[in-house]
Amino acid sequence: MPRYSAPIKDLQFVLHDVLDVTRADIPGYADLDPAFTAAVLSEAGRLASDVLAPLNATGDRIGCTLENGTVRTPPGFAGAFAQLRQGGWPALDCDPAYGGQGLPYLMGTAVGEIFVGANMALNMYQGLTHGAYSAIHAHGTAEQKATYLPRLVSGEWSGTMNLTEPQCGTDLGLIRSRAEAQPDGSYRITGTKIFISAGEHDLAENIIHLVLARAAGGPEGTKGLSLFIVPKFLVTEAGGLGPRNRVVASRIERKMGIHANATCQMEYDGATGFLMGGLHKGMRAMFTMMNEARIGVGVQGYAVAEAALQNAAAYARDRLQGRAASVPANPSGPADPLIVHPDIRRSLMDQRAFTEGARAFTLWAASLIDRATRTGDTEAEALVSLLTPVIKGFQTDKGFDSTVAAQQIFGGHGYVEESGMSQFVRDARIAMIYEGTNGIQALDLVGRKLGADGGKAIMAFFELVTTFCSENGTDPRMLPFATPLKAACKDLQTAAMHFLQTAPKSPDTALAGATDFLHLMGHVCFGLIWARMARAALAALDRGHPDAAFLDAKLATARFYMARHLPATALHLARITSGADPVMALPAEAF
Amino acid sequence: MPRYSAPIKDLQFVLHDVLDVTRADIPGYADLDPAFTAAVLSEAGRLASDVLAPLNATGDRIGCTLENGTVRTPPGFAGAFAQLRQGGWPALDCDPAYGGQGLPYLMGTAVGEIFVGANMALNMYQGLTHGAYSAIHAHGTAEQKATYLPRLVSGEWSGTMNLTEPQCGTDLGLIRSRAEAQPDGSYRITGTKIFISAGEHDLAENIIHLVLARAAGGPEGTKGLSLFIVPKFLVTEAGGLGPRNRVVASRIERKMGIHANATCQMEYDGATGFLMGGLHKGMRAMFTMMNEARIGVGVQGYAVAEAALQNAAAYARDRLQGRAASVPANPSGPADPLIVHPDIRRSLMDQRAFTEGARAFTLWAASLIDRATRTGDTEAEALVSLLTPVIKGFQTDKGFDSTVAAQQIFGGHGYVEESGMSQFVRDARIAMIYEGTNGIQALDLVGRKLGADGGKAIMAFFELVTTFCSENGTDPRMLPFATPLKAACKDLQTAAMHFLQTAPKSPDTALAGATDFLHLMGHVCFGLIWARMARAALAALDRGHPDAAFLDAKLATARFYMARHLPATALHLARITSGADPVMALPAEAF
Repeated sequence: MPRYSAPIKDLQFVLHDVLDVTRADIPGYADLDPAFTAAVLSEAGRLASDVLAPLNATGDRIGCTLENGTVRTPPGFAGAFAQLRQGGWPALDCDPAYGGQGLPYLMGTAVGEIFVGANMALNMYQGLTHGAYSAIHAHGTAEQKATYLPRLVSGEWSGTMNLTEPQCGTDLGLIRSRAEAQPDGSYRITGTKIFISAGEHDLAENIIHLVLARAAGGPEGTKGLSLFIVPKFLVTEAGGLGPRNRVVASRIERKMGIHANATCQMEYDGATGFLMGGLHKGMRAMFTMMNEARIGVGVQGYAVAEAALQNAAAYARDRLQGRAASVPANPSGPADPLIVHPDIRRSLMDQRAFTEGARAFTLWAASLIDRATRTGDTEAEALVSLLTPVIKGFQTDKGFDSTVAAQQIFGGHGYVEESGMSQFVRDARIAMIYEGTNGIQALDLVGRKLGADGGKAIMAFFELVTTFCSENGTDPRMLPFATPLKAACKDLQTAAMHFLQTAPKSPDTALAGATDFLHLMGHVCFGLIWARMARAALAALDRGHPDAAFLDAKLATARFYMARHLPATALHLARITSGADPVMALPAEAF
Repeated sequence: MPRYSAPIKDLQFVLHDVLDVTRADIPGYADLDPAFTAAVLSEAGRLASDVLAPLNATGDRIGCTLENGTVRTPPGFAGAFAQLRQGGWPALDCDPAYGGQGLPYLMGTAVGEIFVGANMALNMYQGLTHGAYSAIHAHGTAEQKATYLPRLVSGEWSGTMNLTEPQCGTDLGLIRSRAEAQPDGSYRITGTKIFISAGEHDLAENIIHLVLARAAGGPEGTKGLSLFIVPKFLVTEAGGLGPRNRVVASRIERKMGIHANATCQMEYDGATGFLMGGLHKGMRAMFTMMNEARIGVGVQGYAVAEAALQNAAAYARDRLQGRAASVPANPSGPADPLIVHPDIRRSLMDQRAFTEGARAFTLWAASLIDRATRTGDTEAEALVSLLTPVIKGFQTDKGFDSTVAAQQIFGGHGYVEESGMSQFVRDARIAMIYEGTNGIQALDLVGRKLGADGGKAIMAFFELVTTFCSENGTDPRMLPFATPLKAACKDLQTAAMHFLQTAPKSPDTALAGATDFLHLMGHVCFGLIWARMARAALAALDRGHPDAAFLDAKLATARFYMARHLPATALHLARITSGADPVMALPAEAF
């Protein structure tokens, strides 16, 4: 059975050496001294290793069951969820006005990795609840906040997002669920929603559904959608549980992975709902949840990859098979451990370069979110909005590949469910799909974020990279990082320019190159964060940091990324500049 | 539920336009006229679509069960296997001396794709039987051939390969199963074998296990291994079933995919076995099976990808979601079909360029095998030996990616098992692992095949590509294919030279670059076959071939491959020339 150990040393390195959080001018960050963050992360790590991780495989094997509208989660899940709740983890970065602990989003993100790495399916119940909390916090009335937020923050109640319907996933303009206004100001919601994660379960006493539906009087398409709060149990004036609402789970899906998270079909049959965020303004409110959810999914990309890597590395150190090409590493044993073989080492380095890069990049983005929300910095907000599709799309594509590579190290044993490596692959697969498929992320980046506000955010990103390169181009120790980063960024600039120049004649060029642009940009982002990590490691070594081995490994991994991954930018650029014609040449009927 | 339709038009194009089989100077090829091959392929296609494909999803869902040593295959499998047998399909390319139909290996490979595409797990029972047939045919005594081959050819009996043990997969030198010579010339085989595909089942009346074990008097390691025939039921003098042998299935594995193929742990408890191919010469005989099996696994790579692509393309044509950027394709409907979107089209083209390229490349390699076995051409033999790791390793890596891309087109519906797209991904995953992991394929290519016989085979391959480029570099219509192919081949030559130059100082360089070399070479192979397909399509158009749309699509897909995939050679070369240092810099303890 796989084991999980929270990567606390690496998280601490990112928080304190790379981001230098206590000196960042963001309210609340001064309190995040190394001893405090270590205590929080260690406590989360203990719960993750001891309680959540041991339930991961059984959750996968047993899954959820639906009987008469009641969903039963796998054995042990209710107890583990209660421990999460009792530890105050759902409240970590929530508003103290509603019982939250008020820690920065950064800390929620760091802790989130740990819980996801230990048990992705279980943590989803909490993740969706946090999304509902954020949406109500941002768009609810004072009364709605008072009614729902304290119980969501405490984890007594959980939340969901209801967007998808049988005829529409990506294209929400096709939503048919409807809302009829009632004399008392509430609405009656009727329709079928599918693929609702955590739509029904036995972990919380109430479930607060946020539902996109169509009320009379609005335009067609997405602009006619409104968002409604639809609790499973209506809430009494005193804040207790009232009558059961007219919403039931009619089916749960048999899926490739995340078996322990119930994916429900929900039937709203005149259920009572409460408008939130203004009539026909549902998309705006829903985007609050979706943007947060997209960062959360990007975390899943590397959290599961980290768990898979830990187990692959342990297997590679233990499993004796073959001999090293030069000198035997285990001459008294029957064979050398797998890890002596360069092709195995290459794969482990690929996985490591990805997970560590993604962790640092995502935590940097989380700090930008804190900067935006806690200081009102609109440039930080625009930048993180630009980076969100990269975090979601690039990191889950690469994260999935990373789990496949980890599974491969086990050979045939990786294909057998007993090793647990298959589960990592199957669980990681969903992250490329939900909260907007990665193709949609690429279109969001190219079609919306790139040109937003006259391209201000992407220009700021270019500026940031080139400034870093010129600031560090004079240090001979940083040249091996700054030089390839500069070249990679030039590829990204060329690609953006190509889109700009071809757009008037061929709008399809940017669309056909969108996924390659997402990956090109992902590599530049990772090149930047690896160069920043290298600089931080060098500085720490200069200061006489006691763990030189850790810092040397960091520098070696940074060099690996520069040598073996960053050159991919040229390939993506070549594909982009080959244009839309090769992609669109075949008529649809030819397929 | 997914559907499957045999790609007969494309198979015919490869056989007759690309390979021009009836004019090839290989015994038996003159008979392969278009009408005959179309009849064979259509008949296989009918069986595949009507009988095998409808059982694929139920086979996955229900899987195999083991009770008291008896394995039950999923409902319908026995009947379907009987139809395969009655149709004479297992006998297709077997020796007429033992009841085979004597068709070329090429035809067995073409038909094999069809059966695998329809139901990979079911076809494995047949594929392993063919491997056992080939090994006994090549290495058995006259009596062994007479005893076993007719029933393997007829499909009444099936076969297995028994290599893996708990302590060894790749490193067969660690095998512990032992064989004790008996006075009657037989051996008593004792040991545990794991991961034995089709080790026990209810589809055939007898199972002929080929077992690697260690007999007294041999050296340690692989050179002390011998190969034994161990039938489930001993065969009487009259050729009938005698007593049950002392071998049982003690366990079947719960796996990520190919649920309908029983993966067994086999206990040999003093089972009676018969030496085949000479004492301590087991590896040689086993390699006959393994090489064939590796080509077969390479076929699985594109066969499953083809099935997944067919379903993804159908979904993309049907599913209405979003609007085309320019002009609506379905103005009277609620939305346009997915296929209008360039990013969807890109993905479908990726899948198409892979599956069609792999099909043509593999069938060309199959024709080389026929040339080697039917004319004794040792150059053809050396060439196909060089190409085998590419067929197995590159094609199954890319084939898996292709199924993931096909699943992605379905969005959330692809993650739900009901669509069947998850099964394609889960089934395709094993092909990267068994018959030697793809890492082992890369080492086989770089460490063994590249330098074999003074590098004769790779030099012949370079010669073949450069000759093609210079012969076609004068035709302006072929320049768009010959020019990038030439550049890609130069990357491959540079990489090979780099290995040669660095080998004395750093043997790890080639090992660390092995997987990249495998992929670099895979792209050059596919570049060559796509250029050959382009030339064949142009020639057919010149001749006034009636299906211009098919040929135009072929040319467009060739251009797509050149524009978007072949440039990957530069990335692989960059990784290779970055050397072993970035890969090996971290000490093993750092992981």
